[in-house]
Amino acid sequence: MPRMKAAIFVEPGRIVLDEKPIPDVGPRDALMRITTTTICGTDIHILKGEYPVAKGLTIGHEPVGVIEKLGSAVEGYTEGQRVIAGAITPSGHSYACLCGCGSQDGPGTKHGFKTTGGWKFGNIIDGCQAEYVLVPDAAANLSPVAEGLSDEEILMCPDIMSTGFAGAESGGVRIGDTVVVFALGPIGLCAVAGAKLMGATTIIGVDTVPERLAVAKKLGADIVVDFKKGDPVEQIMALTDGRGVDVAIEALGTQGTFESALRVLRPGGTLSSLGVYSSDLKIPLSAFSAGLGDNKIITSLCPGGKERMRRLMNVVASGRVDLKSLVTHRFKLDDIEAAYDLFGHQRDGVLKVAITP
Amino acid sequence: MPRMKAAIFVEPGRIVLDEKPIPDVGPRDALMRITTTTICGTDIHILKGEYPVAKGLTIGHEPVGVIEKLGSAVEGYTEGQRVIAGAITPSGHSYACLCGCGSQDGPGTKHGFKTTGGWKFGNIIDGCQAEYVLVPDAAANLSPVAEGLSDEEILMCPDIMSTGFAGAESGGVRIGDTVVVFALGPIGLCAVAGAKLMGATTIIGVDTVPERLAVAKKLGADIVVDFKKGDPVEQIMALTDGRGVDVAIEALGTQGTFESALRVLRPGGTLSSLGVYSSDLKIPLSAFSAGLGDNKIITSLCPGGKERMRRLMNVVASGRVDLKSLVTHRFKLDDIEAAYDLFGHQRDGVLKVAITP
Amino acid sequence: MPRMKAAIFVEPGRIVLDEKPIPDVGPRDALMRITTTTICGTDIHILKGEYPVAKGLTIGHEPVGVIEKLGSAVEGYTEGQRVIAGAITPSGHSYACLCGCGSQDGPGTKHGFKTTGGWKFGNIIDGCQAEYVLVPDAAANLSPVAEGLSDEEILMCPDIMSTGFAGAESGGVRIGDTVVVFALGPIGLCAVAGAKLMGATTIIGVDTVPERLAVAKKLGADIVVDFKKGDPVEQIMALTDGRGVDVAIEALGTQGTFESALRVLRPGGTLSSLGVYSSDLKIPLSAFSAGLGDNKIITSLCPGGKERMRRLMNVVASGRVDLKSLVTHRFKLDDIEAAYDLFGHQRDGVLKVAITP
Amino acid sequence: MPRMKAAIFVEPGRIVLDEKPIPDVGPRDALMRITTTTICGTDIHILKGEYPVAKGLTIGHEPVGVIEKLGSAVEGYTEGQRVIAGAITPSGHSYACLCGCGSQDGPGTKHGFKTTGGWKFGNIIDGCQAEYVLVPDAAANLSPVAEGLSDEEILMCPDIMSTGFAGAESGGVRIGDTVVVFALGPIGLCAVAGAKLMGATTIIGVDTVPERLAVAKKLGADIVVDFKKGDPVEQIMALTDGRGVDVAIEALGTQGTFESALRVLRPGGTLSSLGVYSSDLKIPLSAFSAGLGDNKIITSLCPGGKERMRRLMNVVASGRVDLKSLVTHRFKLDDIEAAYDLFGHQRDGVLKVAITP
Repeated sequence: MPRMKAAIFVEPGRIVLDEKPIPDVGPRDALMRITTTTICGTDIHILKGEYPVAKGLTIGHEPVGVIEKLGSAVEGYTEGQRVIAGAITPSGHSYACLCGCGSQDGPGTKHGFKTTGGWKFGNIIDGCQAEYVLVPDAAANLSPVAEGLSDEEILMCPDIMSTGFAGAESGGVRIGDTVVVFALGPIGLCAVAGAKLMGATTIIGVDTVPERLAVAKKLGADIVVDFKKGDPVEQIMALTDGRGVDVAIEALGTQGTFESALRVLRPGGTLSSLGVYSSDLKIPLSAFSAGLGDNKIITSLCPGGKERMRRLMNVVASGRVDLKSLVTHRFKLDDIEAAYDLFGHQRDGVLKVAITP
Repeated sequence: MPRMKAAIFVEPGRIVLDEKPIPDVGPRDALMRITTTTICGTDIHILKGEYPVAKGLTIGHEPVGVIEKLGSAVEGYTEGQRVIAGAITPSGHSYACLCGCGSQDGPGTKHGFKTTGGWKFGNIIDGCQAEYVLVPDAAANLSPVAEGLSDEEILMCPDIMSTGFAGAESGGVRIGDTVVVFALGPIGLCAVAGAKLMGATTIIGVDTVPERLAVAKKLGADIVVDFKKGDPVEQIMALTDGRGVDVAIEALGTQGTFESALRVLRPGGTLSSLGVYSSDLKIPLSAFSAGLGDNKIITSLCPGGKERMRRLMNVVASGRVDLKSLVTHRFKLDDIEAAYDLFGHQRDGVLKVAITP
Repeated sequence: MPRMKAAIFVEPGRIVLDEKPIPDVGPRDALMRITTTTICGTDIHILKGEYPVAKGLTIGHEPVGVIEKLGSAVEGYTEGQRVIAGAITPSGHSYACLCGCGSQDGPGTKHGFKTTGGWKFGNIIDGCQAEYVLVPDAAANLSPVAEGLSDEEILMCPDIMSTGFAGAESGGVRIGDTVVVFALGPIGLCAVAGAKLMGATTIIGVDTVPERLAVAKKLGADIVVDFKKGDPVEQIMALTDGRGVDVAIEALGTQGTFESALRVLRPGGTLSSLGVYSSDLKIPLSAFSAGLGDNKIITSLCPGGKERMRRLMNVVASGRVDLKSLVTHRFKLDDIEAAYDLFGHQRDGVLKVAITP
Repeated sequence: MPRMKAAIFVEPGRIVLDEKPIPDVGPRDALMRITTTTICGTDIHILKGEYPVAKGLTIGHEPVGVIEKLGSAVEGYTEGQRVIAGAITPSGHSYACLCGCGSQDGPGTKHGFKTTGGWKFGNIIDGCQAEYVLVPDAAANLSPVAEGLSDEEILMCPDIMSTGFAGAESGGVRIGDTVVVFALGPIGLCAVAGAKLMGATTIIGVDTVPERLAVAKKLGADIVVDFKKGDPVEQIMALTDGRGVDVAIEALGTQGTFESALRVLRPGGTLSSLGVYSSDLKIPLSAFSAGLGDNKIITSLCPGGKERMRRLMNVVASGRVDLKSLVTHRFKLDDIEAAYDLFGHQRDGVLKVAITP
């Protein structure tokens, strides 16, 4: 049985490059040969043991590559075709999918978590930090790449763009809105771009790393707030003349950002939460109007499926948003452990790394 | 200056009947003579000092009555006309109103709370547990009563029906949904009726008081769960074959009901929160899918305004929902302190009281 | 190769019972043995040549039955299981499905019509007025039947209920709405039931057949209008005090009903169109406010897929809506030509027929 | 009684500058001194007698100016303040407004038209092509202008931007959509800008005037189609690989553009209609999928009110959209008849004129 290299979760603190068999292809699957992939902040949660996955699992959920082999029941594609798949791989035919909730299409409870079922790659099945990845329900998930788009240009589509934009979409951003984004890592930066793409006219980015604040301005932030230069809630309330914001996007997954996002909402405003949390959250009564504020708290898992990928690649192709500058470092798959080390410690101004087998 | 009787907040623990001047009528106001009103659970929060209002304020926000005098700029009504006004009195012309968020139309911060601006009666202006009440922005708030509807039939429209139905509406209840309502006080009972009215086909009511469980069944609950007879989360997950509910409506305002509502949500489900909370809330990580569950938490303040009242009175007139059985006790305004005593201690199977000056 | 009986379109004016091979089962298909099916108004359009289908096609799109054989890639079902499938059979994995438009999932242009792609049974593939039907994309379309539900109780789910309810859903019916339904055939009657299920409080049914008006009242119509006893537009405007209706549902497919539906809309109201039209439509300027009325005209094809069927069967099981009285006549499959004759000529007060192989 | 100059509709074919009394200010009104206004395509419909208004009416509905006098019941403004008001002036307190349909807030039937009630200026009350205009329901309609914004920069907010953007908003444009705009006059050009602002990634503009096609490209059109160089439907279907568009915006008000917009829709797509029609419309069966295409036809009247104006001025202030190039000609109010002549005949590449008293 032919084998391939893959980045494997061994135990908390250890993800290593090792060998595994190239998987068999079931009738509804496709085998994708990876040409480029990347590491996500969620992978760091996995590495640290903050988000549980099975030992031995291949990590990674952002595949760009080529169809190596199609399952017998998959029609409409050709082997050798360039494709991407989303981080989340809905089947299309589940009750969740048919109910409009494809990101939650999966087996349900896992390790005490209720859900995240739709997230399979590098979570409940082998992921794509490897030479090959098996794409489940290929007919719903393989999205052909238009000519002229490079791997790196579309590398953000499977997760970062889809999640970041979902922050703006779930927030229901409207023309003329004031939007704040808390934390300007790759997801937060894409949330800034998404809010601009949907018509927000005052976008406030909150972080403290100068490079991130600068990229945020390039991607659409009208104002940036350094949370080390004063309480960010006070700064934002001052910037909005005490009105608060229409939509606050949380893009980190901590009590601090969550609570600040809640505190800056205008009455009737929406907190759109993208972060992966690692502990219980508190909703302070004073930030919650005793439950009488007509507020919404909405969490979004990265939307997937081939239609979503098609749309996001259109955004890239249209030139509306340019995310190339997010790829700050490049590694061979053979060096992925070094990439984890750099990315996990957020050294050297890293935003995203490109990994090529 | 003529005087009237009014139930006045003196200090935590004391609401007393006293005299006040009958208010002057500004150009956009109307003076309403109260024929029937009631006491709300929120008034008990005020009485206990859990929800802050100014000393000396007249309490009450559920007015049924007759137009006594119209402001000079108010057109389209006649003095002597039977009307109701909602508990929440949007101006119609504020930025909040014109942005689709009329319930939050108001001065903003109050006593450390961010909002609840749209709730004015018995909160930031004198309320309607009195012989007369001044209705602000009368053109937006006076809703004429159709012939044939009695005071008691429409007494639930200003708050209880509007809030309870909003629980179902904000939850986005769809045909075929499974909905659970936590706590079957008057608001929760109206949430049951609202969920049925919107097409939910499995409605689960949670409480422990037999009379409330019985009324819930009459109003549309298909199943009732006594939370004293086993963990309600486990009972509900068993009832739904482990699937969870589409919409969970919280109608009490406690950590326990809030947390249980979160735990029974299906992936992608919505927690629609109606309760007035008195302390910080905790979101347990295990109930929150680490923020990846595509869940919504939506709080709703009672929708007001004359169009809302018109629609709710239509519900009553159509016979779709019969809430008369919610009025379990009747008092004269002169005896309102006794009414507070009964209602505040939830004695004698009380659901709602009717107060008549 | 084993053969089966099937109702086949021969040419305009002729649908006959004949024999065909029982189809082979591909990997994503399922073969369903029909236990009960029915004839739809659309089948009469086909019979008359008003809606084009290929000669030799088996007609029928409302299957109730038992899984005879499962394709090799279909999981989660067992042969012998009782199931239904919707009239519309989305694949789940197409761009249309993943874009939230599963009813339009199909090959696109057909015979000069742009679409109706999602409607396959008895339109572009063999239908279910037969002993067996091949269900495409079975994983998305087979919906198991709960114990205790009879064939006739759920016979309306695949099309009539789904389409009729969609009239109310696409119309965006809200609590307290006034809704009119033009034409009270089976679809219109289900639209009445759907409008009630979503909270409309004044439902006006328009027809002239006394039996239909009577059934409409049982299913939720508050008022019925006989269009032969005066101009229905005038009657409805009078009934609404000149205000017009929030939602007008067209359930026939003629210029007269379409135009009347448009004329009775309030400013901002929605025309929800369910009819299958056979000729061009006219929008009179005077009914259209010169295009300035903030009106919507929305057409809906029957929503399908197993989640939709699950929800509709829940409606039946909950007892919220009782459609058993719609089945007025019963035929053996052997007598289906007689059934077409009766149903096509609307003789003998027929609403729906049950056909059993 | 002091008098002012005003452009008055005398009879079909004649709008003349004449004198009128400066109006009295009622309690809820404000008198605005006009500093800049403009002529709309709808005014040309009025001039030609295609859209009926009363003889003697002052025309014009796009006011930029200064508060001259406030009504006694209007709070929160100061005389001398720079403001704009929308073309549509909702009261805020009507049933229509409180039902979320402020643009239709008005007296209802007029001259055989059902509605357009919310459009008052230059339609049912005196308009703003004058030295002064009386703003009804001033508290809902006066929108203060931020420092640094010139009259011409915000001159498009009251109607052109609001209407054009509404074309994209009512169409429900989503990130990654393909949108076509038929007719690139000022409204159509703003619809292009609005579609871009909401995240459309392929925007196709259709016209034949080279200057308009060029401006469309500057405002966001990715592709322009000259309808004189081949059937526009065929060109658009080819450009979309036969898929059709997600949203087609009609911005002229003719059978040709309406019908083409319908024909290029993908299954499930939306026709967003902005035009003011002058005659009956036809919906060809072949363009309508026999009513089975899950299509929407949505008409939008210009959204008004001070919150809408605030948001649109934010768009201008943010620099997201630059519409200054739309003002191609400038006239004194004294020369407004010449302005009508130029604009009505679309001479000299005119897009919009600025009129200053």
